[in-house]
Amino acid sequence: MWRTASKQVIRTVGSSLSDLSPLAKQLHASPGSKKIVGVFYKANEYAAKNPNFLGCVERSLGIREWLESQGHQYIVTDDKEGPNSELEKHIPDLHVLITTPFHPAYVTAERIKKAKNLQLLLTAGIGSDHIDLKAAADAGLTVAEVTGSNVVSVAEDELMRILILVRNFVPGYQQVINGEWNVAAISYRSYDLEGKTVGTVGAGRIGKLLLQRLKPFNCNLLYHDRLKIDPALENEIGAKFEEDLDVMLPKCDIIVINTPLTEKTRGLFDKERISKLKKGVLIVNNARGAIMDTQAVVDACSSGHIAGYSGDVWNPQPAPKDHPWRYMPNHAMTPHISGTTIDGQIRYAAGVKDMLDKYFKGEDFPQQNYIVKEGKLASQYL
Amino acid sequence: MWRTASKQVIRTVGSSLSDLSPLAKQLHASPGSKKIVGVFYKANEYAAKNPNFLGCVERSLGIREWLESQGHQYIVTDDKEGPNSELEKHIPDLHVLITTPFHPAYVTAERIKKAKNLQLLLTAGIGSDHIDLKAAADAGLTVAEVTGSNVVSVAEDELMRILILVRNFVPGYQQVINGEWNVAAISYRSYDLEGKTVGTVGAGRIGKLLLQRLKPFNCNLLYHDRLKIDPALENEIGAKFEEDLDVMLPKCDIIVINTPLTEKTRGLFDKERISKLKKGVLIVNNARGAIMDTQAVVDACSSGHIAGYSGDVWNPQPAPKDHPWRYMPNHAMTPHISGTTIDGQIRYAAGVKDMLDKYFKGEDFPQQNYIVKEGKLASQYL
Repeated sequence: MWRTASKQVIRTVGSSLSDLSPLAKQLHASPGSKKIVGVFYKANEYAAKNPNFLGCVERSLGIREWLESQGHQYIVTDDKEGPNSELEKHIPDLHVLITTPFHPAYVTAERIKKAKNLQLLLTAGIGSDHIDLKAAADAGLTVAEVTGSNVVSVAEDELMRILILVRNFVPGYQQVINGEWNVAAISYRSYDLEGKTVGTVGAGRIGKLLLQRLKPFNCNLLYHDRLKIDPALENEIGAKFEEDLDVMLPKCDIIVINTPLTEKTRGLFDKERISKLKKGVLIVNNARGAIMDTQAVVDACSSGHIAGYSGDVWNPQPAPKDHPWRYMPNHAMTPHISGTTIDGQIRYAAGVKDMLDKYFKGEDFPQQNYIVKEGKLASQYL
Repeated sequence: MWRTASKQVIRTVGSSLSDLSPLAKQLHASPGSKKIVGVFYKANEYAAKNPNFLGCVERSLGIREWLESQGHQYIVTDDKEGPNSELEKHIPDLHVLITTPFHPAYVTAERIKKAKNLQLLLTAGIGSDHIDLKAAADAGLTVAEVTGSNVVSVAEDELMRILILVRNFVPGYQQVINGEWNVAAISYRSYDLEGKTVGTVGAGRIGKLLLQRLKPFNCNLLYHDRLKIDPALENEIGAKFEEDLDVMLPKCDIIVINTPLTEKTRGLFDKERISKLKKGVLIVNNARGAIMDTQAVVDACSSGHIAGYSGDVWNPQPAPKDHPWRYMPNHAMTPHISGTTIDGQIRYAAGVKDMLDKYFKGEDFPQQNYIVKEGKLASQYL
């Protein structure tokens, strides 16, 4: 049983988490019918418009038939918050909860405490900060995501947002639909990307893919991370490692956030740090909204210190109607969409199915998918 | 005198246009005070917002002091059309007319006939289709542009538009400012660029720069042009030459127009050609609006045959308030801005100054800048 295979037990079977000894297999084995709950966004009239639109409630990752044919129960909903929500009803007896970052079901310590049968929390996509990871670890749960499923999607989206800000696209589009034509009102602050200094905060999978895609644009590329990129790749991309974040940031014309939300990165861009950025800096954040101090971003966009801010992540999500980022000047925000392209959905649906299959068989997941493995946090969350 | 240095005379001085023999120099020499007229867009309150905003009426390419110190007269206006316009007043006695594609002064055969002193037509930027080139050639004029001044700007902008369409960015942005949150309404037709087939119609300077920037996106890249790209570059980019346009087009998920407007390309994308494109094709056109049949694009966007259309060029410009492209579904249009970034303005202002300097000194321009050289059309316009 996954739940009972707690930290204590795992520690006795060896320090290598990929060590699938017969004992561990036995502990991992999880026979019988499972109750699986998936929380996705509803597509309504859009569900029928694309046969590959797998990530919505209506399609439920395309795994219902497969799950039910094996005797499992599969409940799917978008109703995720509050004591009377559909999700809340199933918390006491679900075994597996599948969530997404796009319509996140917040898995609090309280919910984990109530979920007596819960063994496995899967993120269809990447990012598990909607889960109280400490509480999940303390309860001996496993939390995993489909690492890599949408890293290309997000990196491409970041490059789009960089260009949208550098070019001042949004006011141009607005002129068109408002029947106007005023080139000057756009071009007085429209630039080439070429020659600008772009820094990424974090150069993990997404950050690296972004840097590779930026390479032909002839920018000055910088990156900050805990670790240097592999020298061959660093040389190929031509990006410069910056050990000290606060040394890198004031050099950047454009800053892209590519770090997970952890206790270390929460509120990283507060009033003080933003005040030290170059005046007129552009910021792209598809990582997590809570990495920014919400009001500090609004104030800096209003003063012009930040000349443009674009991203698809908010705190909280869905963003309420009165979220100030909807109304601040010079933003190019969208709902949380960068990782839920149709191509991404196909990949993360396949990744969730693969992990469920391994879970039923008592097998390990691909190592990089683990956020919490049977009570033990992955290294980047420590 | 440039005007009198007509085709006939040039032909006698040698077939090499770059051959600056003493005789040619003498013919090119153009002594005395010149009347130079520049037609730019007005910046109004935006002029003061950026010291490098050179391309507007208020800054006039930053060459007024230089011109006047040499005894030349420099008239600048944005009032360009109709018999009572400021430009029309100066047509009879101007020697040089500087125009831009962003706020084009249409130089018709009639205007050329009236312009008895006209010798030189300069485009601050790239593209001279707002000039009746045949009439200009017949009158023995020289027409030149600042080739290369904003090719990077336009190529970057095209990649932005590709991603905006592939990602379905615009509806996402609109949701944000309208207080909505509906991920499904965006993502049911949001894709990765990776793996898609992108074809460029034309692989000149801009097309090549676009292909180079697309390379790391792992697309299937195709190009159609009169000539194959240099094999080394073709191999580096990994793009495939398509000799027959109509064989290439139906293969493309995304089509980018990178061909000048000539009598051969006018109306190239008509109803019939569009009907043969892949259903759901995305089209980016920063080349010229008249390459498309306006109504055929509207109809195909309305039916969904074209799933997205983005560009910054219109027919005519400025686009009237009732231009149907403003109101068709799934567009991401802007006014004509891609080539008038601040970086581009700095380059084309310098290029115009350089050509004026050479004109005053009776020297040749950089060869690639010529559209019409003293009555002779450059090869791509023949």
